[in-house]
Amino acid sequence: MIYDTAIVGTGPAGVSAALTLTIRDKNIVWIGDPSLSGKVEKAEKILNYPGVAKTTGKDLNALFKEQIADLGIEIQDHMVTGIMPFGDHFALTAGEEFYEAKTVILATGIVFKVALPGESELVGKGVSYCATCDGRLYKGRKIAVICNNPRFESEVLFLADLAESVDLFAEYKDVSSELTDRANINIHSKKAGAVKGEGRVEGVETDDGVIEAEGLFILRDSVSMSTLLPGLEIMDGHINVNRSMETNIKGVFAAGDCTGRPYQYTKAVGEGNIAAHGVLEVL
Amino acid sequence: MIYDTAIVGTGPAGVSAALTLTIRDKNIVWIGDPSLSGKVEKAEKILNYPGVAKTTGKDLNALFKEQIADLGIEIQDHMVTGIMPFGDHFALTAGEEFYEAKTVILATGIVFKVALPGESELVGKGVSYCATCDGRLYKGRKIAVICNNPRFESEVLFLADLAESVDLFAEYKDVSSELTDRANINIHSKKAGAVKGEGRVEGVETDDGVIEAEGLFILRDSVSMSTLLPGLEIMDGHINVNRSMETNIKGVFAAGDCTGRPYQYTKAVGEGNIAAHGVLEVL
Repeated sequence: MIYDTAIVGTGPAGVSAALTLTIRDKNIVWIGDPSLSGKVEKAEKILNYPGVAKTTGKDLNALFKEQIADLGIEIQDHMVTGIMPFGDHFALTAGEEFYEAKTVILATGIVFKVALPGESELVGKGVSYCATCDGRLYKGRKIAVICNNPRFESEVLFLADLAESVDLFAEYKDVSSELTDRANINIHSKKAGAVKGEGRVEGVETDDGVIEAEGLFILRDSVSMSTLLPGLEIMDGHINVNRSMETNIKGVFAAGDCTGRPYQYTKAVGEGNIAAHGVLEVL
Repeated sequence: MIYDTAIVGTGPAGVSAALTLTIRDKNIVWIGDPSLSGKVEKAEKILNYPGVAKTTGKDLNALFKEQIADLGIEIQDHMVTGIMPFGDHFALTAGEEFYEAKTVILATGIVFKVALPGESELVGKGVSYCATCDGRLYKGRKIAVICNNPRFESEVLFLADLAESVDLFAEYKDVSSELTDRANINIHSKKAGAVKGEGRVEGVETDDGVIEAEGLFILRDSVSMSTLLPGLEIMDGHINVNRSMETNIKGVFAAGDCTGRPYQYTKAVGEGNIAAHGVLEVL
């Protein structure tokens, strides 16, 4: 089926867009982390969110979750790794899943990471964002994995089951013992600096030199925008939108931190609402 | 004293801006109806305000009021009738009150009314927005009053005490008996269509012909923007702003319904937040 809209991301902007489109009886697919924004969850004190006095990120997220559940809105627990215009609609890949939608709302949060040098060039040539999709290609081979969220540890273990060895660049603290105990997972403390290889991944560059690898899996909360949706206009590191939250690609809207400062929940919900109304106008 | 910012209007956009500027320790003056937005108050059901599930306008307004009181934020119960650039800051007149502020956030809601034909031209020449300020000029004279909110009935009575007679155009239902019982108040069912007069008010045009008057008091929730702040850029009936909610006048921001559709509380609070951050940047 072709959905009316695909919402990418489950922070406050995504929540706001999903609520509005649902009460307007639109058929949405909403893709992202069902535990909602990790950034909100960690906010200690929120004093300026109108209508919810003196709250914490945890409590605000809980209110969002209740409200979503109450309206029967579902979240697809996947990470969107690619969006392609497809005639009069868009095709989205998210792990092994594939969705089609007439419009897209990008509510991906801030992309803290820009793509690594070499990353965009080597996508599909050894760089992959999806263990389930591409893991089997590397059976018995030496691979590297960049992982920024414990949420993806099961994917790292899945890859370690297949590969000869995994060089893991874990971009978070407290890697679980399941990973540290694995004989064929080698955890690096240095950061991955670049993807090396001529026409195909050959290794990962670090301060200590190049770690050889035949494949590189990048398991991040968000893919860099230039990789996610080629041709999307970026300005000063944010998605370029107009006051109606339209991007330069017709049918694609953006809302929340990914469109720029202030990085505020109130601003994000406002923009999610505007983007949803933009979708209503073009449907 | 010169305030950091003057917020004009107490709907959701004003609430959001006031909360953010207060927790950022700015010195604000907030001018408008302390009972907050009448439009919100009347909203029967609100299903898409993130964080406040299945609410009513009445309940949402009550949450806003609690939150404002909790932070000790005060509202000045006046209607701003004029804003003038004054060197490096702005002077605001509101009834008999006078405020000065380095920046202004316009959160006035939709200006349902554009100025009447003749209104802008005859301001100060018989057209007045302030009974307290100008009422005494019409002692023993024949005046007309346009009133769109029962909140201003006490001003109408004050004028009736002074004037010989008052032709009242009440733009709401259920005018109180205090007014209907007054011998010198003549209530019209026809709308005021235009202000007539050459260089000075001579009367009010209606479908039934011209009602003679030496002065016209217009007591509305909001003054038309072109009258409130001359030079403010208006586009399609809304204040023209960029994505940072800046108007064409440096130091003047706008947020909420007055900047355009969608007329949504969520959009309004988002814009109030952005405008507040814009103020923080220029202070």
